[in-house]
Amino acid sequence: MTVLEELIQALSRMPGIGKKSASRIAYHLLQTDQELNTRLARLIHGIQKKIIRCSTCGSFTETDENPCTMCTSPSRDRGTLCIVEHPQDVLTLENTGAYHGLYHVLDGVISPLDGIGPDQLQLGKIVIRIRESGIREVIIATNPTEEGDTTALYIAHLLKDLQVRVTRLASGIPVGGDIEYADRITIARSLRGRTELGR
Amino acid sequence: MTVLEELIQALSRMPGIGKKSASRIAYHLLQTDQELNTRLARLIHGIQKKIIRCSTCGSFTETDENPCTMCTSPSRDRGTLCIVEHPQDVLTLENTGAYHGLYHVLDGVISPLDGIGPDQLQLGKIVIRIRESGIREVIIATNPTEEGDTTALYIAHLLKDLQVRVTRLASGIPVGGDIEYADRITIARSLRGRTELGR
Repeated sequence: MTVLEELIQALSRMPGIGKKSASRIAYHLLQTDQELNTRLARLIHGIQKKIIRCSTCGSFTETDENPCTMCTSPSRDRGTLCIVEHPQDVLTLENTGAYHGLYHVLDGVISPLDGIGPDQLQLGKIVIRIRESGIREVIIATNPTEEGDTTALYIAHLLKDLQVRVTRLASGIPVGGDIEYADRITIARSLRGRTELGR
Repeated sequence: MTVLEELIQALSRMPGIGKKSASRIAYHLLQTDQELNTRLARLIHGIQKKIIRCSTCGSFTETDENPCTMCTSPSRDRGTLCIVEHPQDVLTLENTGAYHGLYHVLDGVISPLDGIGPDQLQLGKIVIRIRESGIREVIIATNPTEEGDTTALYIAHLLKDLQVRVTRLASGIPVGGDIEYADRITIARSLRGRTELGR
């Protein structure tokens, strides 16, 4: 195998990169400024040393910022806690600009088929966090899948004795979507979760 | 800017990688085996030192193989020369398994709007190569775009006094498209259906 083939193979291991995209990127790397390659290589090599998990919420943070800036920021709403499956979900929610509270990363969902039970998730910490802080509402933002639903119900049960409101992200037809093409379960859920229209 | 944001920005410079794909890849790199990252980083950093241009045909080759294996291989059809725009087109044509001759990389096409005339391309070399070797047929595999067409006609004119057949890939490839993205069967068919260029 040539070095070029090796590079293409390594690139095609990335999520969303097929063999053709990998070739295209490899040829781009061959013809771009060598300084950019050196920089990219340095970033890829060092990323796991420079980015760690926040010891409070579990999202990604730089080594010298633990707890992370979101956990320590005085400008965030410290009464709301949003529970997500993966650290990258934090970025997705942040990008909406619609949420200003705190986060908690589960690092997965309950999935008996994959051998993942409640003990494998960062669940015990949630109860402690809520008890020790002034959190009034917990928004569960697991995906609307079978495993995400199970996990949401499990957390709701876990928190039922605490003085805290437990909500879940609404599930329904995406904005800009078409009822005609939505699946039955999504439509059924959007019916159950229907909201009052202001009059 | 955090290191993670820097990595996402560097990744999104790659062709075909938008901001979302770049984030996805960055999060993958954060959570994958560090050894794989080290290997990828090394490959990216070293690729330009290890892969050079073949001094005969202009396609990519490893440093210790110049002229490249295709130029020196005794098993290839040394009577046919295929002229392509970019070095990556060589790989695309090789992958079809339908061509067994030699290559010549132009490194672009005639494009007056971009200030690229015949002198900027590896054209003079072609005439010398054909004169000095037993090439009987030149297949012009420039893209079926205006610039590719112009370049093909220019080359046909350039070679008109040589004892050589000049053909062009058949337009099985959609006009305005790019060889790099055509599927194998289309490319193989366009090879078989190549047509004489009027001189």
